[in-house]
Amino acid sequence: MELTNWLAKRVRLSPGKTALVFQDKQETFSEIYDAVREVAGKLASFGVRDGMYVALLGKNDRDTFLMIHALAQLGARTVFLNNRLTATEILFQIEDARVERCFYADDFVDKVTANLAVSFTCVKEAPVLDAPLVSNFAMDTVASVMYTSGTTGKPKGVMQTFGNHWWSATGSMLNLGLVAGDSWLCAVPIFHISGLSILMRSVIYGIPVYLEERFDVERVDKLLRSGEVTMISVVSTMAQRLLDVFQAPYHANFRCMLLGGGPASKSMFEACFERGIPLVQSFGMTETASQIVTLPPEEALLKIGSAGKALFPAEVKIGEHDEILLKGPSIMAGYLHNEEATTKAFDVDGWFQTGDIGYIDDDGFLFVLERRSDLIISGGENIYPTEIEHVLLEHPNVREVAVVASPDVEWGEIPVAFIVANGVVDLAQLYEFCQKRLAKFKIPRQFYFLETLPKTASQKIQRHRLKERL
Amino acid sequence: MELTNWLAKRVRLSPGKTALVFQDKQETFSEIYDAVREVAGKLASFGVRDGMYVALLGKNDRDTFLMIHALAQLGARTVFLNNRLTATEILFQIEDARVERCFYADDFVDKVTANLAVSFTCVKEAPVLDAPLVSNFAMDTVASVMYTSGTTGKPKGVMQTFGNHWWSATGSMLNLGLVAGDSWLCAVPIFHISGLSILMRSVIYGIPVYLEERFDVERVDKLLRSGEVTMISVVSTMAQRLLDVFQAPYHANFRCMLLGGGPASKSMFEACFERGIPLVQSFGMTETASQIVTLPPEEALLKIGSAGKALFPAEVKIGEHDEILLKGPSIMAGYLHNEEATTKAFDVDGWFQTGDIGYIDDDGFLFVLERRSDLIISGGENIYPTEIEHVLLEHPNVREVAVVASPDVEWGEIPVAFIVANGVVDLAQLYEFCQKRLAKFKIPRQFYFLETLPKTASQKIQRHRLKERL
Repeated sequence: MELTNWLAKRVRLSPGKTALVFQDKQETFSEIYDAVREVAGKLASFGVRDGMYVALLGKNDRDTFLMIHALAQLGARTVFLNNRLTATEILFQIEDARVERCFYADDFVDKVTANLAVSFTCVKEAPVLDAPLVSNFAMDTVASVMYTSGTTGKPKGVMQTFGNHWWSATGSMLNLGLVAGDSWLCAVPIFHISGLSILMRSVIYGIPVYLEERFDVERVDKLLRSGEVTMISVVSTMAQRLLDVFQAPYHANFRCMLLGGGPASKSMFEACFERGIPLVQSFGMTETASQIVTLPPEEALLKIGSAGKALFPAEVKIGEHDEILLKGPSIMAGYLHNEEATTKAFDVDGWFQTGDIGYIDDDGFLFVLERRSDLIISGGENIYPTEIEHVLLEHPNVREVAVVASPDVEWGEIPVAFIVANGVVDLAQLYEFCQKRLAKFKIPRQFYFLETLPKTASQKIQRHRLKERL
Repeated sequence: MELTNWLAKRVRLSPGKTALVFQDKQETFSEIYDAVREVAGKLASFGVRDGMYVALLGKNDRDTFLMIHALAQLGARTVFLNNRLTATEILFQIEDARVERCFYADDFVDKVTANLAVSFTCVKEAPVLDAPLVSNFAMDTVASVMYTSGTTGKPKGVMQTFGNHWWSATGSMLNLGLVAGDSWLCAVPIFHISGLSILMRSVIYGIPVYLEERFDVERVDKLLRSGEVTMISVVSTMAQRLLDVFQAPYHANFRCMLLGGGPASKSMFEACFERGIPLVQSFGMTETASQIVTLPPEEALLKIGSAGKALFPAEVKIGEHDEILLKGPSIMAGYLHNEEATTKAFDVDGWFQTGDIGYIDDDGFLFVLERRSDLIISGGENIYPTEIEHVLLEHPNVREVAVVASPDVEWGEIPVAFIVANGVVDLAQLYEFCQKRLAKFKIPRQFYFLETLPKTASQKIQRHRLKERL
């Protein structure tokens, strides 16, 4: 099935509505479209054409925003490079995806010229060709490729189709609604699905993206107070930083703080609700084109800790070994050039195997426990790191925590905790705190204190890097 | 593509939300689902099964509401019979559709037993079988069949798929939004697409249907004032009757009066906007599973007389002889058992030929003129009946009007007007009124005064019945 080229259609429907607010400058869909077509003309002068795989190294700015849309207008399949990766990691993805052209934004000139064996191009000064733009977006055509952060194994290129993005956007709308004056603040990376999905929703819904180069807590706090922004996507560290500076209620227009990238603590939810912050837990991944299980806003208070229910077009169930299985039209077409991994990702009935473990309660709400690979098996007992983390987060001096398995001769594995602390932690008191709340075999044998925890670009804790330290 | 059985999914997502309000009694999705499954069990005892064509003669009440959902749960393809038809007309549709079972609501016992050669069944007293319900709705499966009102030629059975209904509902949502607390008042027939589409949106959006047996202007006026109802579908006579009793502004929650079944006069729009009534013009038909072109609410005031723009998933263009052509996933699969009519309905590029004529202005807004078959050709001049009707409606004593062609020896055809008047009309003054506003060849040669105009069940004027009078 095909729909008209989404951006072209949106421009025809609402040319005068705001599409982008970047560095406090507003631009309408009509203005953006003119700029996008110019960039498309420049890209065409480098031979970009329908169906071509093209790598893009960008950041959260207007130039990258235009490039993303321009590549789609030409029918290119964009491989989104994470700009925090090393040259070696980038090279791996470029080769693995067999991209034909690589483009970058100005800022990355050092990175791309220093160590790379591939040639990256900046289109800024290129001549503008009169290139043919695609008239339709076919639902089963690959729109974007993103390499999974690779907390285990080699990164794989997730193929997201136009259909995946469409169903994700409409599924989200059926849960969160669409209100006149809606706008979405994007302070998460646009090379990640949490950011790109905001760009997609903007075009499909006809609402502005407030694009922020980085998560500047003072700026975001101000925007949530202004009434201009009604929705924002965050990870829990962002929510925590907003709580840290919170002084007075946000504007009544602000109606959804969509939380991804792992669950928040119960105390964070309580702190948000006390302050009237509409925190909404969700669960999703690159392979599901963003959120696929989300807590309905009206039940956010009743089911703290739950990721919610599968969005209308999707389904969730628990498979073997308590693995979370997903089905629905927002789930990826597969891994690029990797049939083996694609086959392994789906079970015989077509359910996508997330590798996460969890359970569904009697009311049908999903609770995510952790990555299967993060499970700690100690003396035959299953230990769920998140359970211990949630307990430790209740401690007033524990700001962030990750619990991982450490090899042990006697027990096979034992749990150890890495902590980012608020102030000074009394170890004896911390141990006592755990003793009151956790079975003995669950209490971490070691506590390590760090300045920060290692995280992926999407703010997921990289547990494998912590394990390497042990 | 398949989605989970929509009603089952909706019940899992929001069991406690209100699904139906009928005769002031509220029922949740969970309660409705229990009742629907019971009715499905009764239907199963008459052999209703997946894929079977079944005729339903119902009306806007709870029983019919349950039957519609129950038939869908069993996988039956429901042929919706218009309860204003004669026994002969009903028989034609039943035979044409080759239905295997016919069901009716209690009220129609006279109609169905008197003249029909087919056996109709009432399920009220039937035993409840434990029948298997369909687990999924496939997008390309026929969900409903409705015979077009047949203003010209023999009625044809329009096949509406689940996909048609889905895309109609989501396309509407992308234009009109979805707000917490939304609900839709259904006082249009549920055997017609304008009514059935409200039932579909209810399940997909998770919002209540306020189902009214008939359009009782006092009741509807009260509901729009109560704050309980946020959306309503109307035809222009309903809007006019609401204006007639209008006393004080509607509740602020009430945000959309969706107008179908032909355009309203400019003066009606102005009267609505003066009173803060959010009238939204739309254009659609049985073949497009309800509205497919709708005026965006924010532009309703700027483009009075326009039907708006094609919804996000759809496209509109003007073809040969100024015919309005449509494309999009809400357009019917075809006419049941009628390949010839299906083939004729689409052009070589797959555009659906509406048979309506119109134009698109420079800003991309569609203006519907009339049915091609209603065009009056007088002495070689094209005369658009709606143009003359709009002029006549500006006259303070003209309440409703239809202009049709009358055969004429000299001119081929001449325009004549049928009028429903407010008070006494001075014919000489009316003629003078026309002279000031219309070219001579457009002025009706005869004015006929009627108590009411003949209309279809969906309140469309039956011009062919007026022509028969000439």
